[in-house]
Amino acid sequence: MILELEQLVRAFSKLPSIGRRSAERMALRLVGRDDALVSDLVTALENVREHVCLCSRCGAITVRTADPCSYCTDPRRDDRVLCVVEEAGDLLMIEQSAEFRGRYHVLGGRLSPRRREGLKTLRIDALVRRLVEEKFEEVILATDSDVEGDATAAYLQELLADKRVRVSRLALGLPAGSGIAYSDPVTLSRAIKGRQPVT
Amino acid sequence: MILELEQLVRAFSKLPSIGRRSAERMALRLVGRDDALVSDLVTALENVREHVCLCSRCGAITVRTADPCSYCTDPRRDDRVLCVVEEAGDLLMIEQSAEFRGRYHVLGGRLSPRRREGLKTLRIDALVRRLVEEKFEEVILATDSDVEGDATAAYLQELLADKRVRVSRLALGLPAGSGIAYSDPVTLSRAIKGRQPVT
Repeated sequence: MILELEQLVRAFSKLPSIGRRSAERMALRLVGRDDALVSDLVTALENVREHVCLCSRCGAITVRTADPCSYCTDPRRDDRVLCVVEEAGDLLMIEQSAEFRGRYHVLGGRLSPRRREGLKTLRIDALVRRLVEEKFEEVILATDSDVEGDATAAYLQELLADKRVRVSRLALGLPAGSGIAYSDPVTLSRAIKGRQPVT
Repeated sequence: MILELEQLVRAFSKLPSIGRRSAERMALRLVGRDDALVSDLVTALENVREHVCLCSRCGAITVRTADPCSYCTDPRRDDRVLCVVEEAGDLLMIEQSAEFRGRYHVLGGRLSPRRREGLKTLRIDALVRRLVEEKFEEVILATDSDVEGDATAAYLQELLADKRVRVSRLALGLPAGSGIAYSDPVTLSRAIKGRQPVT
């Protein structure tokens, strides 16, 4: 393959959930007929690089002119509850649910139970510091419900045990709009363990 | 969502098989920790825009310093057979099979049977011109085996009927490594119609 195209394919391949074949299709599409799209992409990437950053306090995505971010500074948000998420994208999903209006802390990744890596790159020290400096009463561990999310939650639970703060984790159970027949044994087991009294 | 990020998401969404959610994941990944990847992407996109183009003769992907492309100019390739494909990526797939060593013609798309669009944007005039100027004995229609690929092949077949050139189409049948139980009625019907004598 042409060198310039191969370099573009490699760069696309590094994006999440983009495999070699998808990256090739994306790169091929940009040759010849889509010069406007190439320019749009270059401009958008440069604008993101120049103006967008992670909030120095919570790690959420913000613009350089608003750091700390609005999640940290908005006085209408609840200062007593801190929601810990793996990625900035998780924060956006939780915001969409409109159920939570406290503060956030973005870890920037997750712990792998096998490789103990992650401990250095995750914003865990910053989390501990915030628990000292700010006055949270509850920390919600909103990690994924897979092996690495479980490992991350377990690690944080241990770490926060002596921090005089209530620690909770997102409920594990049936997703909305799903059926028991389409579920799986682990989900059902967790949904049964976490069953709620009907009032 | 932050304006700069939204623009990047929109640009990514225009790439083939990238939906809104994938585009969001891709854009979010590029904030904060992956400045090197942003630079790699920008550089790669700019290099492709500057150096890569479509061959003015066959429409394959080539570099501006080699137009017409090597598929057109390589003297070891067979001048008597022309393989017509929809997209430049299809050409690369056929090259990988190492079964064909003739010339190529890339249409740059396909006809939609419902909307008659495509007729203007496809490189069909250029194909007809090449059949006059070059001395092909056979044209292989290597379009996809779906509705639009069938429509494109049917249109070209009609167009080439009076051009004193043999016209063939890729065999339709079972894909390699597949089983009859995993096939579908249309594929099987075509595989039976196109059955080959065992010698």
